[in-house]
Amino acid sequence: MSLSLGIDIGGTNVKAVLLHSAGQRLARRRWKTAALGEGSEIPGRLADAIIEFLASQKLGPGNLVGVGVASAGLILNGEVKTSPNLPHWEGLKLRDGLSRGLGRRVLLENDVNALAFGEWKLGAGKGASSMVCLALGTGVGGGLVLDGRLFRGSQGLGAELGHMSIDLKGRPCLCGSLGCLEAYAGARAIRLSAESALAHGEAGAASLRRFLGGKDPDPEQLHLAAKSGKSLAIRIFDEAGRALGVAVANLVNGLNPDLFVLAGGVSRAGRWILEPALDEARNRIMNPRQQKLKIRLRALGDDGASIGAALLAREPRP
Amino acid sequence: MSLSLGIDIGGTNVKAVLLHSAGQRLARRRWKTAALGEGSEIPGRLADAIIEFLASQKLGPGNLVGVGVASAGLILNGEVKTSPNLPHWEGLKLRDGLSRGLGRRVLLENDVNALAFGEWKLGAGKGASSMVCLALGTGVGGGLVLDGRLFRGSQGLGAELGHMSIDLKGRPCLCGSLGCLEAYAGARAIRLSAESALAHGEAGAASLRRFLGGKDPDPEQLHLAAKSGKSLAIRIFDEAGRALGVAVANLVNGLNPDLFVLAGGVSRAGRWILEPALDEARNRIMNPRQQKLKIRLRALGDDGASIGAALLAREPRP
Repeated sequence: MSLSLGIDIGGTNVKAVLLHSAGQRLARRRWKTAALGEGSEIPGRLADAIIEFLASQKLGPGNLVGVGVASAGLILNGEVKTSPNLPHWEGLKLRDGLSRGLGRRVLLENDVNALAFGEWKLGAGKGASSMVCLALGTGVGGGLVLDGRLFRGSQGLGAELGHMSIDLKGRPCLCGSLGCLEAYAGARAIRLSAESALAHGEAGAASLRRFLGGKDPDPEQLHLAAKSGKSLAIRIFDEAGRALGVAVANLVNGLNPDLFVLAGGVSRAGRWILEPALDEARNRIMNPRQQKLKIRLRALGDDGASIGAALLAREPRP
Repeated sequence: MSLSLGIDIGGTNVKAVLLHSAGQRLARRRWKTAALGEGSEIPGRLADAIIEFLASQKLGPGNLVGVGVASAGLILNGEVKTSPNLPHWEGLKLRDGLSRGLGRRVLLENDVNALAFGEWKLGAGKGASSMVCLALGTGVGGGLVLDGRLFRGSQGLGAELGHMSIDLKGRPCLCGSLGCLEAYAGARAIRLSAESALAHGEAGAASLRRFLGGKDPDPEQLHLAAKSGKSLAIRIFDEAGRALGVAVANLVNGLNPDLFVLAGGVSRAGRWILEPALDEARNRIMNPRQQKLKIRLRALGDDGASIGAALLAREPRP
């Protein structure tokens, strides 16, 4: 029995999954990210938590064929360089600190890269030669499997597909650019759109406000509203979906992948965002008869990135 | 002495280069594309022209280790599927027809893919792990070398980087989409911009019109005008360059390449287009300290695609 461990570090939770070589999840664990402290104490505390989790399975780090860690943010040389959702982790030498704490090598990878790899090996992307993963979370992340390999770019900093500008004079993005996909199709952007539409009393605002009953207009609530036929919620997803469709068309034209895998909370809005995205993309793909367009939702649930990290830790080192 | 032959088929000329394994160009030849006729007669006529060229070098097709053909347009299964600049070639089974005429296998590749490969192996991209090639010709083509390999996409249809929309409600593109890079930074688009600015009497129009003296405002003339300080010409290149910069930033964020190689007639405008492109790109790249931005002009002159085709014909078949 060959086991590997995958860890997925997000702004709120850290998720661990113990993976059998055949792909089964043998055990899972979750910790609050904040409970791991700040700065240089983080790697040691995380190592302790992992050791305790492994001990509960009657295992130690030495029983594993690999440990992979997926983290939000730009990862360079084993450090979390910048991560808007993990401000206390910036500049942290996470890979080396964790390696010391566990007494073994650790692989550190961007979380959406790991997610793409997981979905490609065991989930919605199985069998694809080239695949684009878009994670529509608070922001929008990207991952690329190209010609049967995870593509990391020359420094390991790609694929920040959420920061593709599709509207050069469009909405300001937190990254400093204008018109990024993230500024239209991320959960933060969708909520801002809804708040602005409600504040300006756009068509359907009163009806949507009654439906929300004081709740925040986040994508989850807007999805419920769209299902109930609230026209403003439908229009907000349509706008986000069309922006997504432009980005999808750009990626089809530029990379000619077999398929797209969508993940992240916003993707749960399903057809409300997918149908406008497909419609917009089809109108923009060069020679739609020849260029493939296949979009699937993730298949591994919330464990995609941790599973991907566990799988990457089994691979020969790049 | 190991020789390969590269052919580059463009809308006006067909170029051939006989390449030594060490990379020297031993002989070159040019034919008018129109002289090769139309439809099914093309492959046979091209084969005859090649055989005659080889005979002038005291060679036959059997003396070559490979024959590679680069063609404009979408290439699928050895056919030219669509090519705005080669309308008579559409649907042509070019690879198989040429193979029959020459009595040997032939490799058929998109021209900008071949150009990217040529510049990567012997030109401006030597030593790069990942490289983006943008050919700013009449339209805008793209080629990608990723992780040390020419990337063709799952069907071999990538990388149509000229059809990346950077302005979702922007200028109409011949491909049917809106706001494509090609609609801003291709020679056709730049000339249209200049014609429109002249017709509308924009600031500097009278001075530019006097400078042109009846000549068409194509990128070559506009380059001369910019060098002479004509403000409207400078502004037109600035606009094209800024659109290019948005696309470059998208590609840096999405693919994290080592460098960009610019080719095509528009790239001859040099700093008039490069400086605004760099300025715009730097403002849009995530973490410019970490993401590399290096843009070079092509090094192989007009022979990049034919050299790339000759080199690809030496590679193991994909």
